[in-house]
Amino acid sequence: MKKIRVAVLGATGIVGQRIVARLENHPWFEIGALCASEESAGRRFEEAVEGRWRVPGDVPAGVRDMIVRDCRPDPEARVVFSALDAAMAGPVEEAFARCGALVFSNAKNHRMAESVPLVIPEVNGEHLRLIERQKFAPGGVVTNPNCSTAGLVLALAPLHRRFVAKRVFVTTMQALSGAGYPGVPALDIAGNVLPHIPGEEEKMEAEPRKILGDGMSPADIRISAQCNRVATTEGHLMTVAVEFDKKPSREDAAEAISSFAPLRAWRLPTAPEFPLFLHGNADRPQPMLDAGRGGGMTVTIGRLRADPVFDLRFTLLVNNLVRGAAGAAVLNAELAVAMGYVQ
Amino acid sequence: MKKIRVAVLGATGIVGQRIVARLENHPWFEIGALCASEESAGRRFEEAVEGRWRVPGDVPAGVRDMIVRDCRPDPEARVVFSALDAAMAGPVEEAFARCGALVFSNAKNHRMAESVPLVIPEVNGEHLRLIERQKFAPGGVVTNPNCSTAGLVLALAPLHRRFVAKRVFVTTMQALSGAGYPGVPALDIAGNVLPHIPGEEEKMEAEPRKILGDGMSPADIRISAQCNRVATTEGHLMTVAVEFDKKPSREDAAEAISSFAPLRAWRLPTAPEFPLFLHGNADRPQPMLDAGRGGGMTVTIGRLRADPVFDLRFTLLVNNLVRGAAGAAVLNAELAVAMGYVQ
Amino acid sequence: MKKIRVAVLGATGIVGQRIVARLENHPWFEIGALCASEESAGRRFEEAVEGRWRVPGDVPAGVRDMIVRDCRPDPEARVVFSALDAAMAGPVEEAFARCGALVFSNAKNHRMAESVPLVIPEVNGEHLRLIERQKFAPGGVVTNPNCSTAGLVLALAPLHRRFVAKRVFVTTMQALSGAGYPGVPALDIAGNVLPHIPGEEEKMEAEPRKILGDGMSPADIRISAQCNRVATTEGHLMTVAVEFDKKPSREDAAEAISSFAPLRAWRLPTAPEFPLFLHGNADRPQPMLDAGRGGGMTVTIGRLRADPVFDLRFTLLVNNLVRGAAGAAVLNAELAVAMGYVQ
Amino acid sequence: MKKIRVAVLGATGIVGQRIVARLENHPWFEIGALCASEESAGRRFEEAVEGRWRVPGDVPAGVRDMIVRDCRPDPEARVVFSALDAAMAGPVEEAFARCGALVFSNAKNHRMAESVPLVIPEVNGEHLRLIERQKFAPGGVVTNPNCSTAGLVLALAPLHRRFVAKRVFVTTMQALSGAGYPGVPALDIAGNVLPHIPGEEEKMEAEPRKILGDGMSPADIRISAQCNRVATTEGHLMTVAVEFDKKPSREDAAEAISSFAPLRAWRLPTAPEFPLFLHGNADRPQPMLDAGRGGGMTVTIGRLRADPVFDLRFTLLVNNLVRGAAGAAVLNAELAVAMGYVQ
Repeated sequence: MKKIRVAVLGATGIVGQRIVARLENHPWFEIGALCASEESAGRRFEEAVEGRWRVPGDVPAGVRDMIVRDCRPDPEARVVFSALDAAMAGPVEEAFARCGALVFSNAKNHRMAESVPLVIPEVNGEHLRLIERQKFAPGGVVTNPNCSTAGLVLALAPLHRRFVAKRVFVTTMQALSGAGYPGVPALDIAGNVLPHIPGEEEKMEAEPRKILGDGMSPADIRISAQCNRVATTEGHLMTVAVEFDKKPSREDAAEAISSFAPLRAWRLPTAPEFPLFLHGNADRPQPMLDAGRGGGMTVTIGRLRADPVFDLRFTLLVNNLVRGAAGAAVLNAELAVAMGYVQ
Repeated sequence: MKKIRVAVLGATGIVGQRIVARLENHPWFEIGALCASEESAGRRFEEAVEGRWRVPGDVPAGVRDMIVRDCRPDPEARVVFSALDAAMAGPVEEAFARCGALVFSNAKNHRMAESVPLVIPEVNGEHLRLIERQKFAPGGVVTNPNCSTAGLVLALAPLHRRFVAKRVFVTTMQALSGAGYPGVPALDIAGNVLPHIPGEEEKMEAEPRKILGDGMSPADIRISAQCNRVATTEGHLMTVAVEFDKKPSREDAAEAISSFAPLRAWRLPTAPEFPLFLHGNADRPQPMLDAGRGGGMTVTIGRLRADPVFDLRFTLLVNNLVRGAAGAAVLNAELAVAMGYVQ
Repeated sequence: MKKIRVAVLGATGIVGQRIVARLENHPWFEIGALCASEESAGRRFEEAVEGRWRVPGDVPAGVRDMIVRDCRPDPEARVVFSALDAAMAGPVEEAFARCGALVFSNAKNHRMAESVPLVIPEVNGEHLRLIERQKFAPGGVVTNPNCSTAGLVLALAPLHRRFVAKRVFVTTMQALSGAGYPGVPALDIAGNVLPHIPGEEEKMEAEPRKILGDGMSPADIRISAQCNRVATTEGHLMTVAVEFDKKPSREDAAEAISSFAPLRAWRLPTAPEFPLFLHGNADRPQPMLDAGRGGGMTVTIGRLRADPVFDLRFTLLVNNLVRGAAGAAVLNAELAVAMGYVQ
Repeated sequence: MKKIRVAVLGATGIVGQRIVARLENHPWFEIGALCASEESAGRRFEEAVEGRWRVPGDVPAGVRDMIVRDCRPDPEARVVFSALDAAMAGPVEEAFARCGALVFSNAKNHRMAESVPLVIPEVNGEHLRLIERQKFAPGGVVTNPNCSTAGLVLALAPLHRRFVAKRVFVTTMQALSGAGYPGVPALDIAGNVLPHIPGEEEKMEAEPRKILGDGMSPADIRISAQCNRVATTEGHLMTVAVEFDKKPSREDAAEAISSFAPLRAWRLPTAPEFPLFLHGNADRPQPMLDAGRGGGMTVTIGRLRADPVFDLRFTLLVNNLVRGAAGAAVLNAELAVAMGYVQ
């Protein structure tokens, strides 16, 4: 199989770098173009990220000398990964789509549009069919959810299927990398917690309803999200309490989580066999110890127990840069290829 | 008025130090004895805390040269503040009480005993009457709640009075100082969050029911608490969502909080005029900026708004060492003196 | 004595805020004007610093409602404190001086100019006489050194006087606040140290020679400075080793440091009686515990001992915002008033 | 070649864990015994390290179920790695040696003994010959230096060979993991720097003289070391200034560092081809970005430049757990095998 050449938009940012790193040695994709702001365009990729490369290890050899382009649509790009800021993502992604690309976007701009699939492959891969109803022909746009949403919905999915979640409380403790670079000034967060992340709660309350819905209408779940920034670098931690229609026992819930492996048959290159890992220790998950599980693609759930107000509660950790961003976009693209949406 | 001589048990620990500091220049109390473990007994107080003094500023001049005693009951001590560890607090506090002292304890040991008042002066000062039914005659034991409970209940109190709180979700992000010294190893918490604090959730779910009750039976409130340790030094931050019997508007809730000043008539030396401060900025409270409000006695509430699942939600910050421990015990003692329980 | 009305340039920045705070209740000065960038001009001071006020406690009541001005020279300002960025400090400070003001500047721009005094009152107050040779008539410019230099030179001064320092090695571990706001991104410094602070080493190697000189030519001292940024918020820590012409014993050095009180006769309002504090504990100074000594005006020296390569070595801590910036400028102004340079 | 069965003493500690991890899939060694304190003895290794496993990734599958032994000498162990605390390392290591083992120790106890080689393979591998003069027959003891010494001496070695170093100033900023677990309390180091690490400076001033010596007498180098603890987790950073007998140019020094590859002919399994990496960026090395270079075996040097007092200065980063401890002991053992000291 010949590899599919892809372009990465916003390749020099924190999420873009992760996409680039994930595509190194990818069996299906190879990077054909790295696009970024005017400021970076024309420079070697290694230079463009000098002093701000935030992926463990070095800049992959294969892209080090690639010349960064600006974000003008490129008719050769059939698969495009977008890690652009919301401030500019909308029109740029549309332009690439109209040029024929299937754009896998991490930006919020198109997520809630009716005909744009907002996809977590393990949860609602079949929503990809919405592409066919899009206005972006000949290409299309596929989005992955907000980083915190990604973790929450993955954890809820096996429980929701069997027990029908109705109401959810979630409080997040989110890592610095979620704010991009330069992001949060050190003076604001050293020895501190910031109790507000603009726009985050709204996303966490709306996006899960779309993802858990049937593609046409949202799921009937009410969510209250309270989002905080803490001084960790990678991995969003959150406490969750859920009320269900059919009250599950702790054991049934644990079994649903541990056996959740909906993508197994697809054999996608970067899908973990089990996207959820239920940790038995009382003091887990922890960002420092669990953010790397499954290369960042596995969400760790811990402290699963009965809740004195609702039915169940637990703590979860999602790698915001991988499962919540770069890895999510790449996995979406893999599923789209496997389902035949990429010609 | 002649000052009342008091003893401080556990005077060398983090909370004990704060009690000592709060008693410097106190108009009603003066320190007559500093008691601690065998290891510290016999040494000058300044020596005993060398390298572990954690209060901003120096060891107060008045106690620097005081010789630390062990914790054997002292018949001269009429008012005793206990900052002992739970591992030893129970029998030591009882022994002091049976010797005639009124013990104001920060330890958990007696908090839930039926005849022991668990008091926040602004909320249930009248529970002090339980002293009379105690088995510790001729003295008695008065407790203040767990540090996180103190903040939660103070915030709930004015709302509960008017609107009757029924169900509460709370997630905490608690400071390192709450674990005492040496407490949490730096390697465990650097760039990390610990999702479990043993025993903490149980206290936060039980103690508020007793404090908000009538002194005989607990209040009918159900609480779900999820407690986390973050790398801040002072001030426990928490997100709260509450369901009420009588749904309040955001404005009515704000008014109830801002006007809450139940101790005003008592003129207690260390009571802030308003124990709650409602902050209008979206990004407050923050541990770094708000833990010192009212010298640590004022709880800061922010982000008060309607909750999409329950009725109201907000974020609060309580200074765990002052309002949640040292300042709580001293304020309890002031109220007990004012009410005539100290002869 | 009628208070002298002063203006503060760059009043909304980290150093400017500290100057404003230090002038609250100052016995000789009162704030007549707060000046800042165009962006802040026209707004109430409290609004202009909202979300970035970094001084413990609230914005002083007396300036909360003062309307911020831009930095156009104001003929009424006789004493001006400048906390402007180096990028704009040069011409603005000159303009104020030519309008008649004596400008006390924290910026680097004029520090090394021959006719501009670079002053630490305890060390070279007599250099203020250079004002008379300046080209900025009718006003003048007085500078205080870089924050790290301030600590180093204060510590060296009593030793240099008696023993004549010849060669110095210094390695700094500097706090985040030294980089201003927003300054260092949290992602760059969390769990990290940055081994380079642009321009800092050059200042530390050049400024001490001017300050310790006779006002005409620099002192004959060679300094090697290596500057690092660490994740502390306030207080620059540094290790120092010194070679002297006349080898001092450890005891003679200690005595020289501890007895250093050259300003005593001047009775300046914010001068600490002893600008140096020699700590006897092996594990001091520490930024967290010692940055506040003397309200930030006292430099703490610890670990004074013989050096196996040169003669003496020690560790020192200087509060970079107070002794290294805001407090330095205010103390310079006090000395200038006392010496009759302000009419 | 049949693998050599080895024992690890102190296998549950921070350094012991790293040794265990480095021996997973080692081509020459395989773990035959894991030894630790009485408390851990008798438990499965995975249980014994539960909640304190500090190596990225999981406990290696091959040792997960191995039963931890106490530290009684085992006649079958021919090669032993010791990560014991200094408090008990001395007699235990001797006992193993007298039983026939060649002990590769990370502890300080025997380092400075005349007949015990203190070895960095790239620098003084030939000192291994001292084993033959030891009193520990039939076995022997080989030590690796203190973690900070390891980095300093590796950096000095190529310069010393060509230009003869005479005097050195070094100031360290050392990571938390250097203090073991639990080590430094978070309350002591959060937002702070500790200016003293007991015993560390003495080691850094004495050990390099032995290592750079001829095996009989120490090298004629004088070193002044000032050691600090900072809130990083892995990687000791240090500033260095050196005076040489033959003044090198910056270029000659750079060339000496970059071409340093003294082990190349030995083809040892875990030796990096180049043990030193000279970084060209002004803001490197940094603990967060460079501690992992060469799997932790490569020391990164940056900011190499002329020194205004001595001849050269630079900043270096050594991975204290790998090159400074676990990796050092394993590399010593590899060299000993290659040289024929292990039968």
